[in-house]
Formats: sequence, C-alpha cells, structure tokens
Amino acid sequence: MNTFVMQMVGPDAPGLIYKVTEMLYRKNCNVIRQDEYVSPDNQFFMRTAFSNEGQIDQEDFTQELRKSIKDPSITISFKEQKKKNLVLFCTKEHHCLSEIITKQYFGELEANILAVVSNHEVLRPFVEKFDIPFHYLSAENLSREAHEETVFKCLDAYDFDYMVLAKYMRILTPDFVVRYVDKIVNIHHSFLPAFIGANPYKQAFERGVKIIGATAHFVNNMLDEGPIIAQDIKEVDHRYSAADMAKEGRDVEKTALMHALKLVLADRVFIHKNKTVIL
Amino acid sequence: MNTFVMQMVGPDAPGLIYKVTEMLYRKNCNVIRQDEYVSPDNQFFMRTAFSNEGQIDQEDFTQELRKSIKDPSITISFKEQKKKNLVLFCTKEHHCLSEIITKQYFGELEANILAVVSNHEVLRPFVEKFDIPFHYLSAENLSREAHEETVFKCLDAYDFDYMVLAKYMRILTPDFVVRYVDKIVNIHHSFLPAFIGANPYKQAFERGVKIIGATAHFVNNMLDEGPIIAQDIKEVDHRYSAADMAKEGRDVEKTALMHALKLVLADRVFIHKNKTVIL
Amino acid sequence: MNTFVMQMVGPDAPGLIYKVTEMLYRKNCNVIRQDEYVSPDNQFFMRTAFSNEGQIDQEDFTQELRKSIKDPSITISFKEQKKKNLVLFCTKEHHCLSEIITKQYFGELEANILAVVSNHEVLRPFVEKFDIPFHYLSAENLSREAHEETVFKCLDAYDFDYMVLAKYMRILTPDFVVRYVDKIVNIHHSFLPAFIGANPYKQAFERGVKIIGATAHFVNNMLDEGPIIAQDIKEVDHRYSAADMAKEGRDVEKTALMHALKLVLADRVFIHKNKTVIL
Amino acid sequence: MNTFVMQMVGPDAPGLIYKVTEMLYRKNCNVIRQDEYVSPDNQFFMRTAFSNEGQIDQEDFTQELRKSIKDPSITISFKEQKKKNLVLFCTKEHHCLSEIITKQYFGELEANILAVVSNHEVLRPFVEKFDIPFHYLSAENLSREAHEETVFKCLDAYDFDYMVLAKYMRILTPDFVVRYVDKIVNIHHSFLPAFIGANPYKQAFERGVKIIGATAHFVNNMLDEGPIIAQDIKEVDHRYSAADMAKEGRDVEKTALMHALKLVLADRVFIHKNKTVIL
Repeated sequence: MNTFVMQMVGPDAPGLIYKVTEMLYRKNCNVIRQDEYVSPDNQFFMRTAFSNEGQIDQEDFTQELRKSIKDPSITISFKEQKKKNLVLFCTKEHHCLSEIITKQYFGELEANILAVVSNHEVLRPFVEKFDIPFHYLSAENLSREAHEETVFKCLDAYDFDYMVLAKYMRILTPDFVVRYVDKIVNIHHSFLPAFIGANPYKQAFERGVKIIGATAHFVNNMLDEGPIIAQDIKEVDHRYSAADMAKEGRDVEKTALMHALKLVLADRVFIHKNKTVIL
Repeated sequence: MNTFVMQMVGPDAPGLIYKVTEMLYRKNCNVIRQDEYVSPDNQFFMRTAFSNEGQIDQEDFTQELRKSIKDPSITISFKEQKKKNLVLFCTKEHHCLSEIITKQYFGELEANILAVVSNHEVLRPFVEKFDIPFHYLSAENLSREAHEETVFKCLDAYDFDYMVLAKYMRILTPDFVVRYVDKIVNIHHSFLPAFIGANPYKQAFERGVKIIGATAHFVNNMLDEGPIIAQDIKEVDHRYSAADMAKEGRDVEKTALMHALKLVLADRVFIHKNKTVIL
Repeated sequence: MNTFVMQMVGPDAPGLIYKVTEMLYRKNCNVIRQDEYVSPDNQFFMRTAFSNEGQIDQEDFTQELRKSIKDPSITISFKEQKKKNLVLFCTKEHHCLSEIITKQYFGELEANILAVVSNHEVLRPFVEKFDIPFHYLSAENLSREAHEETVFKCLDAYDFDYMVLAKYMRILTPDFVVRYVDKIVNIHHSFLPAFIGANPYKQAFERGVKIIGATAHFVNNMLDEGPIIAQDIKEVDHRYSAADMAKEGRDVEKTALMHALKLVLADRVFIHKNKTVIL
Repeated sequence: MNTFVMQMVGPDAPGLIYKVTEMLYRKNCNVIRQDEYVSPDNQFFMRTAFSNEGQIDQEDFTQELRKSIKDPSITISFKEQKKKNLVLFCTKEHHCLSEIITKQYFGELEANILAVVSNHEVLRPFVEKFDIPFHYLSAENLSREAHEETVFKCLDAYDFDYMVLAKYMRILTPDFVVRYVDKIVNIHHSFLPAFIGANPYKQAFERGVKIIGATAHFVNNMLDEGPIIAQDIKEVDHRYSAADMAKEGRDVEKTALMHALKLVLADRVFIHKNKTVIL
C-alpha cells in the first residue's frame, strides 16, 4: 500500500469535494483522512490522505482532476508520504537541535537530517555523536552577505525539503529568504507578535508578563513576521529573572518547534496570505 | 438561507463521501463544514453542515440518499439548526446552573431553558429572577423510585431535547436513565475514571494529586460511566484542602460542562460504544 | 479570632523576617501564611497573614515594628481581612460583569458591589435583578473630560476600595487615572503587550496567531500599560474568524479578571515599578 | 559563598520561624528563599535556602537550633547545594532516559549520572555515546527475586542519591523498594490514580477519555501508589488510537518526570503520609 497526500487550494466553488472523492472512488483509492476549509476570502483548502495498492501516476491523476475541476487557478499538489530531508541551523543553544536529533535518531521524526550548519563550534561534539555532518561557518569578520555566501555554497551540496532554524541567532537577509520561500521554519523565543526582535525574555521580564511563549513560523519575509505554525506558552511569576525565563522558555521553544515540524512533515500546513491553514 | 446538519453513521465503504457530496451538489446545497472519521472497528462517521435557499424535504432527501448508498445499516439523521430545549437539574450548588442561565439569558447558548428541577429550594431565588419555572421536588421521606415518579410527572409537561444535570447530587435509577437514552448530560466533579462516586475532591485530596479535573458525559448506564464528552483540569498543590479543591473545582466543572453543552447543541457529538466521536 | 494581613516593602536588610516573626510571637499572634520575596533591585516584599484572639492596635503595632526595624524607607501596612468595596464599570458586554455579580451574589467573592456605572443602558436589566444601583452615564455629545466629570460626581457617593473595569470600552484620561492610583483594575482583551489598543481580536486574526489571550492589570498610566496581575490564554486555529476569537475570548477575559480580582481582594498583590509581586 | 538548604518538619508550634530566622541572622547567613507550610494535621514544614561566606558546621548549627526549639520530634536536615548522584533505570523506550542524559550532558541538571541499568540492550548505543556505564541485566529465565539480586549487586558499586525509573517496565518487589525508601522516583504513564497497572493507554483509549496524563511519584510501597510529585496532561480526541496516545503520551511523561526531578534535586520535596509537600 502506498500513501499519498493531495493538497488542493483555490477559489471555492460547488462540487470540489465531490469531484475529488468521485475520482478517488473511481480509481479504487482509499481515503484515510480528508479535511477541508473555506477561508473568509473564499479560498478553498483541501487535504486528502489516501492509499492505493499500486503506484499512482501523479501527472495523469492531476491532469484528469484538472479537467473535471476546470478552474485553472486551483492548484493541486501531490506528495507521496515519505521522509523529508532537513538541514538544521543552530548557534550555541542545544535544546531545539538536540530534541530534533534525538527524536530522529530513534525514528520518531518523519525526516532525514542531512547536515547541521552553525556559526559556532559549541554543538559539534553532540552532533557528531550521531554521525551527522556539522558545518561550522563562522561569521567573524564577514559581512552578512559574505557569510551567507558561505552558507549558500554549503547548502548546494544538499537536496533538502526544509531548513530548520533551531535557535540560529542570526538575521537572514531578504536575499537569503527569497531563495528558500516556504522552506525555512524558525523558532522565535516569544509569543509573537509580542516582543519581536532581540532579547525577548529581557523584554518580557521588564514588562512583567505572567505568561511567556514561543512561536514556530515560516520565514518568508522579515524576521519574526512570517506565517505562524504553532505557539506554546508557560506561566511565570515575579520570581523569574530574565535568565530564568530564558531557561524555562527552552522547553516551550522545543515544544512549539516540534509541534510545528510534525505538522509540516505531514504536509498538513498550507500557507495563505502570511497565515497558515492547518488541515 | 436555512442551515442543516446531517449525521451519517455505519459500516465504512468506498464512495460514501462521494455519494453525499454528489447529492448535495446536485441539489444546490452549499457545504459549510464537513468532517469524517473512520473508527478502528471500521465505522464511518460523517457530519455535514450545509445551507440551502429553500426548505429541504428531509424525508425525500434521506430516501434518495439511502438508494444511492444501499447499505441499510447506515443511519442518516437530519437536524435543522435551531435552538434545542433544555431542562436543567440542580441541587444546592449554583455555579453550573448560573452559568447556563446567564449565557442563555444573553443569547449565547443555542438553547431554550424550559424549566429547572431541584431537590432543594436553595437556588429558586436566582432562577426566578430569570422567569424560568423552578420545580422543587423534595426527596425527603421518599424512596428513590417514588421521588423519580414525581420527576417523571413534572417532566411530562416539557418537550425537551436534553436534560442537563448541573450538579444534581442524586443517583438516578436505571429505570430513569433508560427513559432518556442519549439525552442526559451530567457533570462529574473528577477527572474520570479517577475518583468515581461520592466526594471525589476528598478522594483527590487524600491521594495527594497535583491536578484536579471534571468530566462532562452522557448518562446512559451507571453513574459516572457514560460516554465522555469533555474534560478539563486545574493544577493544585499541597496547600489545597479538600474544601479548597472543591471550591477551585467549580470553575473547572463549569468549563467542562459548557464545552460539552456547546458541542451537543451543535449536533457535533456521536455516541459509539460508550465513547463519543466529536466532529 | 480576627485575621490580618501585614504587607512590608522596602530595601532588603538582614533580619527583617526575624524582626517581624519575633514580634508576632511575642504578641501571641498566629502566623497563617507568610511569604517573602527579594527583587533583583534588592527590594524586600513580605506578606504575613496572621490571626489574634483580640483586636490589634495597628498604630501601636506598626510603631513598635518600626522601632525594631529602624529603616524609615520601609513601608508597613495593615489590613484587617474583610470584604472590600467595589464599583464596577461596563459598556455593553456582560461576561465579566455578570460573573462578578453572580459570584458576589452567592458569597464567593470577598467583596461588596456598591454600584455599576455604564455608558450604555444595555446591562441595566441584568444588574437590577440583583438590586445593585445602575448608573447610566451617557457619553454622547460630551467631551471626554465632561463625561468624566459626571463619573466623578457619581463616584463621590461611594466609598470604594477598587474600581473594576469589566469591559468598560472607554479610554480614561490621565486626570481620571491619577485620582485613583492603584485602585483601578482593568481587563484587556489581548495577551499584552501584543495587540495594544483597539480591536485586538481583529489584530490577532490578521496576524494569524494560534493562541489568544487576556490580561488583567492595574491602570496607573497609559491604557493597557499598567502592572499586569494575571493573564490567561486559549488555543485557536485558522477556523476562527475575528468574531469567533472575540466570542471565545470572553471566557478567557472572565478567567483572567476573576483570577486577578481574587488576588487583589486577598491583599496578595504588591505594585513595584510597573510590575506586580504576588505573594 | 556556599549555599545550603535546611528542611524542618514536625508538630507546629508558635515561634518556629522566628527561632530559625533569629539564628540565621545571628550567624550572618543570608536567607535566599524561605517557605513554610502547616498541614491540616498540624505538621509544620519549612525549607530555607541560605548562603554563608564561610563553611557551616552543620552538626553545631543543628545542635544549637535543637536547643532553642526544644521539641525533639522536629526533624532538621541540612543539605549543601551540590549535584546529586543518579542511577537511571530503563527498558526499551528512550524518551525519558534521553531527555535526562541530554540535559545532564549540557549541564542543565543538578546531577551526575553514575550509570544506566536496563533489562534490555536496546538503549545501550545511545547511552554509550555519552560515556555513561550501561548495565544490561537480563531478567530472562530469572525469578523476580533472582533478577533483583543481580540489580542489588550492580548497585552496590554506586553511591547514589536517587534511582530514577525512566520507563523501567518491571514491577519491583517490596524487598527492593524497602531498601531505597524515599529514593526511587518513577514515571507512570497515566494520570494517577486513573489507570493503575498495565497498559494504561489501552485503558484510556477504551474508556474514551479526552485528556491523557502522566504521573511522577516516589515508589515507597506498591506500584503506582507512592507520593505524587508532579503530573502533566495532554488533550486527545477520538482520532487517537491507543498507540497514538502512547506516542503523544511520551512528551507528557517526559515533562512530568523532568519537573519532578528538578524539584527533587533542589531539595524542595517533603514526603508526608504518602503525599508530597513542595516548598
């Protein structure tokens, strides 16, 4: 049995669900799970997970579905369910990186880790325990652009589906981001849009909040501004210093990022107008 | 525009979604939201909310759908979306009752409250502020059966969809329960199945739990054993006496019951083998 | 037995706890609960709840404690534990107001409600069911200052401890706020500091957040900028419109405000540099 | 600066806090944090964390305090704040074990890991990456008692403060437990006291609960019956099979166990009558 996920997005119209299910029925595909959503601006989103005994010619299938649907502005994409390829980015903090690596090592993540890229050496010993290539690309004495050139060169060797910024503490240039549209997942250590930018825990401490948070999001434009995939929070009180918040926040960051990754790896996330639809 | 909810339950088979959506498409119905689920024992559950400009002859619609589906063991039910009728039961504690009444008074509950039944007088003054009939049916000096007779007689006057036991502190006999199958919603003041029976907060205190909970469920057989609709929890610590837990637990009970009621009133709850499927 | 709460705040120094407990011991007072905190800027905070068979001459007690402590910059305040007096403010939304009134009616709030002030008539029928004076002070055709004059005049009749803005949808002038320093508790319908200002749910919807929140805080300066007392959150997803968020947010606002009120009414909240210390 | 934690437990009496703080004041100790609690059965619990420039003769200090307190039934214990020694037990599941090892590796746990003991070989490769001794003690063809003999022999080599059962799927005999009173921390994969015993996720699935949980507790008598230290929960729905619950439950188990460990390692947990007091 092979398992597929079909994603359909476009202007809502009567009969879309019917046309898809009719075709799947006719082709002896077994629907495992199907979810739909129509947004307030009348876009239709559908995710259908189905299985089939043989292989499916995705080209043919798509063509045939297009004919029955007619509207060319509807996009249809097929993804055979298999492990995605990841490149991980980090700086000095381990908690997100080590969680991804450990879960992947024990087969709990639908992903392969191709490599880790870092602007510091700190996490190399951990990463190499798991026989994952570790690329130390120092940013010292380099312009932002020059450093990113070294990153591009490094990434050229890898055919990855997603880059995961697992506490990579550098700001990416628009040139960087535009190369990997919808492919960069970041974890920001605040409950966005509160405390955008540097040192959010210090900001949170100074404002005296009673709850801290973390936000996993795609990076498609400006830092901390992309479509939010998952958020998580933790209660704090006046006894937490900014450093305590940072420390406790690690688990929240880990949870939010792992939740987001799980959704992304299962092709459950649609990006629409700087927001996500999760089916 | 009229809005309907169709629920379908039965053995899974290929094409079920297709056959429903085909018919809705043909009849110019607009699907608002559709959700499906197939259980491990291969039962198919579907809830389709749709709207139509005219009225729908539910009989005809069902007949026609039956013909296309063929399998007679599949049940199809139609519910036009309108306010359900409730009878509320209570004893002395107000918190669930007052929440239901207040939300209903301000139009936030898709329900009418026909009456309140209680084995104590305590809550009458509150209830009568809202011009809701209050029936005091004392159980004093009556056998359980004799008391329930007075309740049956009282209920005869009301054409209700659901009975809500909003902290009604009496055990119902099997005879009572069997009359109102799938129609009694209860709130139990523990995180079921922990602490079944009397005085769960005292039990929780004695066990030294760090989290207390509440469970909203249908009463279809034995007390505290019916299908669970919603649960909620709250963290506690050693400083909580049994009385403190009871006090703090009130808000949890309220939240769990209101959550369950909202689902039930929107026809989102299916009962299957002493469990609920919520679509 | 009479119960008191003593609050002490000032520069930290060795022996402060000892000096207080020594005196309570000497005077046969029974410590019920005592909590201390030293802030990063070296301020000492202590809350001691204690009971005594007779009355305590608070003046004498304070004098004597001052002598032993010596540092005049330490403030000591005594509060006999009794119900506080509240004036509630609202506009059109009932959920916070009705929760406070219902809990107070059933004796679950350590407070008396002296009056409700509103710039609309909508909630009068509910309030008057509970025999609470309802003052409709329309703001129509009045400058902000002129309207506040009518409020001041109205408030003159009441000797209140706290004003609770239970979804009072008007911005207070600095002149208003300065009159009631540390006495105004507000509920803001966002997870501050995210979405300050108007229509936070619309802002939250547009940003595509996955969690919404509410913040109860003192109003001591600018709107939405005062010391935070309590926050609460709820998960949402792409299916929530701005209106759905507002609707679901009501329960979160209610919870956060009730939590804050409970702390304030128990003299557990210290204000320090635009933050709260809660002991 | 050296940091100490003093724990005091015994019958409540006036002046206890005063006598401790007086002595600390006199000896130039700086109280970092002090918390007290009096239980309903009138036991007094106090935890005082304090620092001192020099060393403290704990014997002398205790003697002197005893003299001033007089009541010999009050126990006083001193713990210099330093890393505790742990022996970890596991079977086949990695999630709790790998979390402890990773956090310890990165210096985030106030503990040393002396060894890992397991009745299976599965986790050896992971453990040995971190240069931690891994003892495979097979239970095959051994009586429970005979197997425990091999464990005792193995443990003899280690001077540990706590044994952590990080998903060790064997039932300990009373003889085992009695040797290590108050020293065994276990994680049980249910929200105790619901679903005691084998396969709690299967039980949870069959009951149709909407929330699953995990419980970290001391093992002092019967399995799953010891004093609860920490609990955590996660919402589930009808789509979760028993296997899905087990999978999602791993993160909850991890969180609950890590929370409990953090408290235990900071000497914040008192055991009292099969419950915990956490200061």
